[in-house]
Amino acid sequence: MDEFAFIRSIAPKHHQQSSLIKGIGDDAAIFRQPYQDIVTAVDTFVEGIHFSKQTMEPHHVGYRVLAANISDIAAMGAVPAFYLISIVIPDSWTKAELSEIYKGMQMLASQYQMDLIGGDTVSGKELTISVTIIGYVEHNKVRYRNNARENDLVFVTGTLGDSSAGLYLLTSQGHSLSDCTRDYFIERHRLPSPRVDFSREMLPLSRVALNDISDGIANEAAEIAEASRVTIHLDYNSLPVHPQLKQFTAEQQRKWKLFGGEDFEILGTAAESDWPAIRAAAEKAQIKVTRIGYVTHQPHNTGKVILQEGNEQSILDKSGYTHLK
Amino acid sequence: MDEFAFIRSIAPKHHQQSSLIKGIGDDAAIFRQPYQDIVTAVDTFVEGIHFSKQTMEPHHVGYRVLAANISDIAAMGAVPAFYLISIVIPDSWTKAELSEIYKGMQMLASQYQMDLIGGDTVSGKELTISVTIIGYVEHNKVRYRNNARENDLVFVTGTLGDSSAGLYLLTSQGHSLSDCTRDYFIERHRLPSPRVDFSREMLPLSRVALNDISDGIANEAAEIAEASRVTIHLDYNSLPVHPQLKQFTAEQQRKWKLFGGEDFEILGTAAESDWPAIRAAAEKAQIKVTRIGYVTHQPHNTGKVILQEGNEQSILDKSGYTHLK
Repeated sequence: MDEFAFIRSIAPKHHQQSSLIKGIGDDAAIFRQPYQDIVTAVDTFVEGIHFSKQTMEPHHVGYRVLAANISDIAAMGAVPAFYLISIVIPDSWTKAELSEIYKGMQMLASQYQMDLIGGDTVSGKELTISVTIIGYVEHNKVRYRNNARENDLVFVTGTLGDSSAGLYLLTSQGHSLSDCTRDYFIERHRLPSPRVDFSREMLPLSRVALNDISDGIANEAAEIAEASRVTIHLDYNSLPVHPQLKQFTAEQQRKWKLFGGEDFEILGTAAESDWPAIRAAAEKAQIKVTRIGYVTHQPHNTGKVILQEGNEQSILDKSGYTHLK
Repeated sequence: MDEFAFIRSIAPKHHQQSSLIKGIGDDAAIFRQPYQDIVTAVDTFVEGIHFSKQTMEPHHVGYRVLAANISDIAAMGAVPAFYLISIVIPDSWTKAELSEIYKGMQMLASQYQMDLIGGDTVSGKELTISVTIIGYVEHNKVRYRNNARENDLVFVTGTLGDSSAGLYLLTSQGHSLSDCTRDYFIERHRLPSPRVDFSREMLPLSRVALNDISDGIANEAAEIAEASRVTIHLDYNSLPVHPQLKQFTAEQQRKWKLFGGEDFEILGTAAESDWPAIRAAAEKAQIKVTRIGYVTHQPHNTGKVILQEGNEQSILDKSGYTHLK
């Protein structure tokens, strides 16, 4: 089933509540309160689909599902505050393992002074964890996907493809990486860092479009391009990667950089004049930020992502690309 | 696993967020905003545990999981406003059936002008629906379980045991009820009515303790008694039932009245002087309300529920009772 099409089919056409600012259609929903807006989103993790005991310890599972939610909040420019957990527990998980899942969440939650405020615990056949997150953002500072404008620059935090490389290392054998490099990629897969600090350091900027990289940069760039009705140009050779990613085959590198999910880095666009402020925000948050492209308004390519690689151009979509003549 | 003990074991001991008023421990969590408080809770439904295709059509499934959440909000004295849905979809459910689930939710949501504002859709082995609900309540009007006081009267809305009777009719054969009676009980199981209107009509009252009946009146009364550190006395012969419940065996009636879950009626305690206002609230909401007991402060029975039946007294707990000499 095409999840996106299905969600669109059930998304309400009209709002009933006057306080609702944004419902389904961005990283999180927003509703208004007197001095700030409230931001909320839900993310669900299923054993065997999103993780397995072969690739993660229980505390990684908890950490990672909460990290995915916090990343949604970061992509709205908001601060996380609360979370609720619904968990379906099969007989194959012990109470000790479940406690480890919660400890993994708490480890991350405490970094952001977040409180666990509710939950539901039921029996079932497969471990399923659903986390609802609630955060705050200042009025008119929400970083919607539809905020991109012609002539914006495009930037991304951190390095791309690390999480995919980590998953590959956990599920394959016979590679000859150093322990240190191997640990780096695996940790990026298991314990990703949401970019809340960076996103919050950009608060003074009047307009930024943000999306977090949960499904690969090609997909996330397309979401911004579609929502903003612009064309996004990415320069393949500018995409930031960890120096050791080159240890993998050219095909793996390419796939993981463009389509690798769950790096939870932040992709954004902003006015050229804001680039020094964005670099300063990254510096304060002690992360890397890289310019990787620009935004145009090409009526025939509205909503599309064009990948430039040397002299060649291709249209990137969620799972592949077609060369342009 | 004892769900309650487990949740207690993971419930944070301290709050980090200054806006948090109540975290884990009531029907919903509460956090403060300038002119009102925000109330939120999550409920999860798993196929085979909470429902089956044998007992419910897809739209009933959607309606009922949202009704359970709205009931939590009603039990806090709040108004529901938003909901988010996380759904795990196995291959055995078609897109048409899933759309029916959503329609069932929308049917109920539209009664309360609620907006669906977010969700997550993933694949998995068993249909699992987790709904997070968000509502509003006026400052200092939250109806906590720990609001019960000595000399309060105890009341309950509607009739008890209907949902259990409905489930029994759906899963057994050979009973001789009229179609009309049968349909009544089955509808109460499939399409329960959360008591939001009644709860909101009680807004002028300065203090009320409320709990919704999701796990049977014995359990819910014990939760109020424990949270308020009082003793609750219930008069067995006053417990309200539908006239046709007498068609079932005495044992069934007794079990369903005291321990039958998911009637989603409201159990409450309030000052004796507020009884006329409570009756008026029920009349406005066009539902029945019945006095069924009173509250005492008996140090040796703190947190307990005492069932009076003629001249006999027993201590009621979640799943049974012990006679008192």
